[in-house]
Amino acid sequence: MKNIILISIGDELLNGDTLDTNAQWISEKLNSFPVKIHRKYTILDEKQPLIEILSQYVGKMDLILMTGGLGPTEDDKTQGILADFFKSKIIKNEEIYEKLKAYFIKRKGFYEEHNLDQAYVPDNAKIIPNNLGTASGTWFEKDGTIVISLPGVPFEMKDMMKKTVLPDLEKLWKTKEVKYTKHVWIVGIGESDLAKKIADWENSLDTNIKLAYLPKIGMLKLRMECFGKNKEEAENKVETAFDEIRSEIKEYIISENNTSLLDVVMQLIRKNKFTIGTVESCTGGYFSNTFTNIQGISEFYNGSLITYNYDIKEKIAKVDKKSLEKYGAVSEEVVYQMVKNGRNILNVDVCIAVSGLLGPEKGGEKEEVGTVFVGLAIHDTIQVHKLNVPYDRITNKSLVFNRTMHLLYKELKSINSDN
Amino acid sequence: MKNIILISIGDELLNGDTLDTNAQWISEKLNSFPVKIHRKYTILDEKQPLIEILSQYVGKMDLILMTGGLGPTEDDKTQGILADFFKSKIIKNEEIYEKLKAYFIKRKGFYEEHNLDQAYVPDNAKIIPNNLGTASGTWFEKDGTIVISLPGVPFEMKDMMKKTVLPDLEKLWKTKEVKYTKHVWIVGIGESDLAKKIADWENSLDTNIKLAYLPKIGMLKLRMECFGKNKEEAENKVETAFDEIRSEIKEYIISENNTSLLDVVMQLIRKNKFTIGTVESCTGGYFSNTFTNIQGISEFYNGSLITYNYDIKEKIAKVDKKSLEKYGAVSEEVVYQMVKNGRNILNVDVCIAVSGLLGPEKGGEKEEVGTVFVGLAIHDTIQVHKLNVPYDRITNKSLVFNRTMHLLYKELKSINSDN
Repeated sequence: MKNIILISIGDELLNGDTLDTNAQWISEKLNSFPVKIHRKYTILDEKQPLIEILSQYVGKMDLILMTGGLGPTEDDKTQGILADFFKSKIIKNEEIYEKLKAYFIKRKGFYEEHNLDQAYVPDNAKIIPNNLGTASGTWFEKDGTIVISLPGVPFEMKDMMKKTVLPDLEKLWKTKEVKYTKHVWIVGIGESDLAKKIADWENSLDTNIKLAYLPKIGMLKLRMECFGKNKEEAENKVETAFDEIRSEIKEYIISENNTSLLDVVMQLIRKNKFTIGTVESCTGGYFSNTFTNIQGISEFYNGSLITYNYDIKEKIAKVDKKSLEKYGAVSEEVVYQMVKNGRNILNVDVCIAVSGLLGPEKGGEKEEVGTVFVGLAIHDTIQVHKLNVPYDRITNKSLVFNRTMHLLYKELKSINSDN
Repeated sequence: MKNIILISIGDELLNGDTLDTNAQWISEKLNSFPVKIHRKYTILDEKQPLIEILSQYVGKMDLILMTGGLGPTEDDKTQGILADFFKSKIIKNEEIYEKLKAYFIKRKGFYEEHNLDQAYVPDNAKIIPNNLGTASGTWFEKDGTIVISLPGVPFEMKDMMKKTVLPDLEKLWKTKEVKYTKHVWIVGIGESDLAKKIADWENSLDTNIKLAYLPKIGMLKLRMECFGKNKEEAENKVETAFDEIRSEIKEYIISENNTSLLDVVMQLIRKNKFTIGTVESCTGGYFSNTFTNIQGISEFYNGSLITYNYDIKEKIAKVDKKSLEKYGAVSEEVVYQMVKNGRNILNVDVCIAVSGLLGPEKGGEKEEVGTVFVGLAIHDTIQVHKLNVPYDRITNKSLVFNRTMHLLYKELKSINSDN
């Protein structure tokens, strides 16, 4: 098993200016190897903390991987600190020099000498090329520890990980020890009730199997992990253990292979050759934006009507004016019309409509803040559900989405079991 | 100045299952006090790393604030570790016991005894109530160090911070030393070019003023920080320094008070009493979803048409079929029609239309992946711009959004300077 420390560098990560999304992405990729990520440090762009961590762990860990602090400006100090620690000379790299020239000529038509400063790199590190930006990465080795430094810009870092770091680690770390991880998505039961339900089973688990409960908004992920001499051994241990509990929690299981609720729903839509569209009021495009993040969705997602005000509900979604006046926009009647008309207008098999009060204001509606009506139309079968969501505006959007996906999941499942 | 260490606890944060959004939020809030957040640790839910950090920093830091590891299940170990470290007895808290009963009765109609396990808390800590969940927080004090433990669920943690932790820290930390931070949003110049442009100024800055470049997607934030005996002193130092450079970079400055480009655009829309709507193809609701995250947007955002496929573009946005066939959906001609018709259909003063190829596939379009046409209509004035975006599907959505906000910003600015 390989032992790893991660470091995220940057004042902006500790003062709240910037959300660190790199560490999660890196952890996920590294976890395909048999690794233990012991901890992650988030530190200021200063000499002392980085030197302290390097002094403590070089010679002890297999890998120290850091991101950030490699920009072209004076507040970026990582490369200088590493050069000091590894006693590097800084030399001009002709290949990078020419690439930087080309980069700036392509982007702004010309370059200035200061644009090429980042062609100067340590002489005793392997250089990790950056095809999307200007800061190269470095790969040092000392006393059995690999020390990798990458830029903090997420798309640059990811590209360098995929093209160089991960393939190179794969070659180095060919090993017989393998980790098997099983992710089970659970919807419809809370964390403490599930824990109670499976407590005896959990207590009797092989000590090599590590179980974790990962609560998400409106759902839960169970993770089981086990190391073994080969994949079969590790997989067999985990799957045999899960076989003992599956039937007891069957009604809550959405998937056993880390497929999210959204992906399971999309698979069912695709399997039925359905098309889909939405008519959204309070969620304001959250559904359509989430759908269109999926590559290839254009095969079966037609479009959406975001009918945020009364006039647009009437004009675009053809909601009856009298119903709007009588019941308000947050009502079973109006959502029924939104989903029924929406299915025809968007020419889809499956339509979702949403209207509710996500807060904090109530506006002129009759219902209380937190009330949301969700309409589902699958061909001529129409249902309207009333939900209650207790959180802030933005969390409520994702809770409404996840609850709606669960409602749709149950409908699509029952269609498929009928066939 | 108060010295702080943050700790995020949870296996899921180190194996890539969960993105840690808590630390950023906490850092931002704590930075309203005169603090230095030295570092953040992300650690496994195990005894050794937490004890190591507590042993190292209790007695040295003013505050150690940790989130996570407080759930009701066996993999949550933080409370036990803290009780050991602070030699606590675990006692039943009657108030929490009754609150937990009420919580479960409200949610599922009844409670079971195991639901009330979290009413057992350390006897020598101040309890931080949790009104949205089941795990209480704790506030220990030892050798001048406050040690706070909060649940990792973001909305529970935020509620507890706002209602208890931040007000209590404010009472304790009333001090004369004050930090002044100035954030300047910059659009239209890259990091290295800006750094070159202002290098002499940067080198001559008062050493008490700390300058940082924070690159974002399609834009850049400059941060200047300074501590002083009072707000006036610190503010005066920073503002006097910025006065020297303002005119040189004026054309790139969007705001000097940390107002984002989006917020500046929304202020201009509001000031002009304009209404706004969008017709989106490739961005699939990213614009409408982002707009509707803003509280109070319903005053001037009417709605959107998400016209993802050809038929819907024709049927809903009234794009001429012949133009679609002749030029393709990703064309100046089609986006011109989308924005012109969209403005009428949505009955708005300002309409934005977007159609492009965000990748990775090209579909049947004539243009290359990365090409995006953006249409802007302000009353009868219509423009169509051609952009090129080089990243992945999801990053491209935000880059298109930011570039479009900049185009709209320039138009709205010129309207306002005309008046």
